[in-house]
Amino acid sequence: MLKRVRGYHVAGQRVTLSGLPISHVQTATNGPSRRSDPNGDYQTGQLYVQQFSLTSPRSSYPLLLWHGGGMTGVTWEDTPDGRPGWHDFFMRAGHDTYVSDAVERGRASWARYPEINPAQPEHRPINQAWEIFRFGPEGGYSSNPQERRVHPNQQFPTDAVDQFSKQFVARWTNSDLQAQTAYDTLISQIGPCVILAHSQGCSFALKAAQHAPDKVKAVILIEPAGVPSLPPTAPTTIPYLIVWGDHFEHSPLWQQYRTNVQAYVNALEALGAAVTTLDLPLRGIYGNSHMIMMDKNSDQVAALVQDWM
Amino acid sequence: MLKRVRGYHVAGQRVTLSGLPISHVQTATNGPSRRSDPNGDYQTGQLYVQQFSLTSPRSSYPLLLWHGGGMTGVTWEDTPDGRPGWHDFFMRAGHDTYVSDAVERGRASWARYPEINPAQPEHRPINQAWEIFRFGPEGGYSSNPQERRVHPNQQFPTDAVDQFSKQFVARWTNSDLQAQTAYDTLISQIGPCVILAHSQGCSFALKAAQHAPDKVKAVILIEPAGVPSLPPTAPTTIPYLIVWGDHFEHSPLWQQYRTNVQAYVNALEALGAAVTTLDLPLRGIYGNSHMIMMDKNSDQVAALVQDWM
Repeated sequence: MLKRVRGYHVAGQRVTLSGLPISHVQTATNGPSRRSDPNGDYQTGQLYVQQFSLTSPRSSYPLLLWHGGGMTGVTWEDTPDGRPGWHDFFMRAGHDTYVSDAVERGRASWARYPEINPAQPEHRPINQAWEIFRFGPEGGYSSNPQERRVHPNQQFPTDAVDQFSKQFVARWTNSDLQAQTAYDTLISQIGPCVILAHSQGCSFALKAAQHAPDKVKAVILIEPAGVPSLPPTAPTTIPYLIVWGDHFEHSPLWQQYRTNVQAYVNALEALGAAVTTLDLPLRGIYGNSHMIMMDKNSDQVAALVQDWM
Repeated sequence: MLKRVRGYHVAGQRVTLSGLPISHVQTATNGPSRRSDPNGDYQTGQLYVQQFSLTSPRSSYPLLLWHGGGMTGVTWEDTPDGRPGWHDFFMRAGHDTYVSDAVERGRASWARYPEINPAQPEHRPINQAWEIFRFGPEGGYSSNPQERRVHPNQQFPTDAVDQFSKQFVARWTNSDLQAQTAYDTLISQIGPCVILAHSQGCSFALKAAQHAPDKVKAVILIEPAGVPSLPPTAPTTIPYLIVWGDHFEHSPLWQQYRTNVQAYVNALEALGAAVTTLDLPLRGIYGNSHMIMMDKNSDQVAALVQDWM
């Protein structure tokens, strides 16, 4: 039972372009061409958020769901094989939620490049996702489903990898600061909250906790891919949960990511944070990919996260 | 009271890129650079849809909300000045809803260009929106709010035009066929439905009604900007509602659009369609812009649409 569903943008700033050539475009089917002058004012650097407010939330703080790199808030919606996702799970568990699309992704919109954003975007092919998300070994993806190689006990529904890849959006690697600013603004608007972040989003969550230690009540990191460049320095009592999937032995890249994360976690613990690490294989839960919230046992892991909260 | 909220992608096809150079990118904050090979398989041509299923819908058919050009499903969410939008209104009125982002916009994602989509996108500055959406006269926008010229009785909350422009997304003018295919696929999956479309989305709605006359039970066109290139030819009993705002006298472009729409509507009526035109100024409702669902009297107009349904 929902009190309200909202969707809106947060943060961002106005930029002005000038000196660009004017063209004529036909934008309306069967309509006349119209003049298109790209010079003028634009908004850039905003994030998009969808807010679901329950009539009777059972959690003390709303849950903010932050996706990873090259993805959007769709991460938390239906799994690629059509099951309810973690957003559904945590709403039913009684959490008010805020599901965002970070700066430059999805409904947040992306700025004209190179005129506003000087950098080129990166588009991720399925082949790359197959390796980086630990569905299978390097070179294990093939256009032919019969020829694909999958890690043993794979929990990701690899038969639905085409559907999954429809979620991929272009990413810019130079927009971290803008994204952080927008997330910090979001938290300043919401107030006390819990952050559930995935992959690249975890870095933003860790920094947000540094920036607003009075508002961030807990941080849940699902397969964090990155950590802030600067280690934490302030004493903290924020509780952290870190969840890791399986098959790290096949990925030197992920071993490196994890080493970086562990160093940051050690620093957090030395400052007083209560860090819980949920290493799924150590708990007898095997085969999870990087996309745990879409894996076949996604509800099982969500329940462990819910128990921790 | 909702039974389920879903979000997922519909339609699309796989394409393969080859021969592109390999680069190295640092995507994880403070993480190592990784190899980025853009060659491989991508999905393109999908739309994104969010489905809200009420526990006890009071309408016979779900309502499909289709945004206009350069926009996304955010069109129907919070108004730029923070009031509940039409999606909220029609859910409360008892409709199951499907809110989509068309191909190449928002959460639908956009394809790498020029390698997959050969065309360049168009980004719309606020200046252009000010004129085309009939907020004020040509050249009436200024970066300085004090210097902006607004049409008399303007219903659009022009003080919130910065917030509004955060919704703008790049558009491609060559993706109409892909968008139509995806919308037709959506309807084939949903079954009997009512379409509420805005601006460019109206052209897709009119064609969808041609393509699936057994499934499209009614079509509501808010300020249609375009119509299909081919006039309708089959007898039809589908009811249509067309809603027009104010200030057409200031816009030769809109007069042309409206002439084209009227020709199509005349053809529809000749084939048996029951077409209702709701010309707001003729009803004594003045000052509406092209973005009626965000105008200050948005609830008043939504109620008229609801009455018609």
